[in-house]
Amino acid sequence: MTYGLGLFLEDGIVLTADTRTNAGVDHVATVEKVSVFQNPGERVMILASAGNLATTQAVVTLLRQRLLQPENPTNLNSAQTMFDAVTMVGSVLREVMNKDAQHVQGYGDASGSFLFAGQIAGGKHRLFLIYPAGNFIEASYDTPYLQIGETKYGKPILDRAMNHYAGVAEAVKLTLISFDATVRSNLSVAPPYDMVVYRKDTIGPVQVRRIADTDPYLQSVRDGYGNAIRDAVRGLPLADWPEIG
Amino acid sequence: MTYGLGLFLEDGIVLTADTRTNAGVDHVATVEKVSVFQNPGERVMILASAGNLATTQAVVTLLRQRLLQPENPTNLNSAQTMFDAVTMVGSVLREVMNKDAQHVQGYGDASGSFLFAGQIAGGKHRLFLIYPAGNFIEASYDTPYLQIGETKYGKPILDRAMNHYAGVAEAVKLTLISFDATVRSNLSVAPPYDMVVYRKDTIGPVQVRRIADTDPYLQSVRDGYGNAIRDAVRGLPLADWPEIG
Repeated sequence: MTYGLGLFLEDGIVLTADTRTNAGVDHVATVEKVSVFQNPGERVMILASAGNLATTQAVVTLLRQRLLQPENPTNLNSAQTMFDAVTMVGSVLREVMNKDAQHVQGYGDASGSFLFAGQIAGGKHRLFLIYPAGNFIEASYDTPYLQIGETKYGKPILDRAMNHYAGVAEAVKLTLISFDATVRSNLSVAPPYDMVVYRKDTIGPVQVRRIADTDPYLQSVRDGYGNAIRDAVRGLPLADWPEIG
Repeated sequence: MTYGLGLFLEDGIVLTADTRTNAGVDHVATVEKVSVFQNPGERVMILASAGNLATTQAVVTLLRQRLLQPENPTNLNSAQTMFDAVTMVGSVLREVMNKDAQHVQGYGDASGSFLFAGQIAGGKHRLFLIYPAGNFIEASYDTPYLQIGETKYGKPILDRAMNHYAGVAEAVKLTLISFDATVRSNLSVAPPYDMVVYRKDTIGPVQVRRIADTDPYLQSVRDGYGNAIRDAVRGLPLADWPEIG
């Protein structure tokens, strides 16, 4: 399993995925699930994946190979807009599924999904979620975050505290809290996390920050939040119902 | 959808379910999903259900009818132990599934699951989760809560703050926080909630408390917790990474 989270902010985008992959509990490994495609000053694109690792790695590898093929219709460097770019990613996902899915049937689920974000000079910064079918939706002011993979445990904190006008640093903090909630409830999601912070209109360069379990900032957020939650619960009144006695 | 939660405490049991049922978003209603079978002083049993409403209502109705049939092997009044009683509930679930499941196939999922708790004089208070297959697991010191239905959103707060030695009033508070997290993230779970608080060794009588959206205690917990969370997030330090700028 994976947890992937993209926050769409007025000032930029924070895109994060964990690095745990497993095919059963006895085959657990760490893999990169966040990839960057960039030509600083002109375009920067960030892709995070969840689902079947063979499928998502094939999609990423094909996209990377095709950066060097000027005539290829799914060359991300030739995309005029982020909409064109996300359409290309969806197409390549369909291509891989058409080739592999029927052979994988019976062994497991070949499907994958992606978060895709970035900015092309002259356009706005945008964030998309690409479904296993290759179609996609876009984040907006009203829907300022998108998730893939193991999405539920990390959602309540976002519903309470996230909005499109949160600052970038605040969004980093919320991301780590959301991941910590997920990790506590699902063994198949785990640090390190790979995170890209993109500030709008910089058009890169960005880099993937790997956040280990021992990262001091992760630890301070995790411990501080855990203590605050326990204090918050303790501070709330008790019911005085007769059946409680 | 439903959310059902049972907390297994040193001092008793708190069992809760919401009352929302839906067959598509245009057919939403309020139904009782918590039933009590009791003979105070001798036995008290509480059943909460999730899943296909036709299936779970049939199970509850059969169990209730059979209380009046002394020879019936699934008469809960004749159970010598809570283990025997939960086995009976599982058997009746299998009976209903054997009769209905094949006819429901194609329309949807006929399956259901239950939380079942209580105490029979001479035995201990116990809490079980009955799977759609009719088999079951039991709560313990190490696994002090069990959930059915839409379980994920409400789990992080339990993993952080719940333990077997929490007081009964504390458990009521945690239950409401866990339900509130679920309701915020899934429209198909909603108040009112039906809750039974059982204190060990009282052997009843218990009653189902209906907690409306307007319940003053629910409101104080919900508002107080929401504010505390936002304060907690705000109080945590910000990262000073260069890419945040």
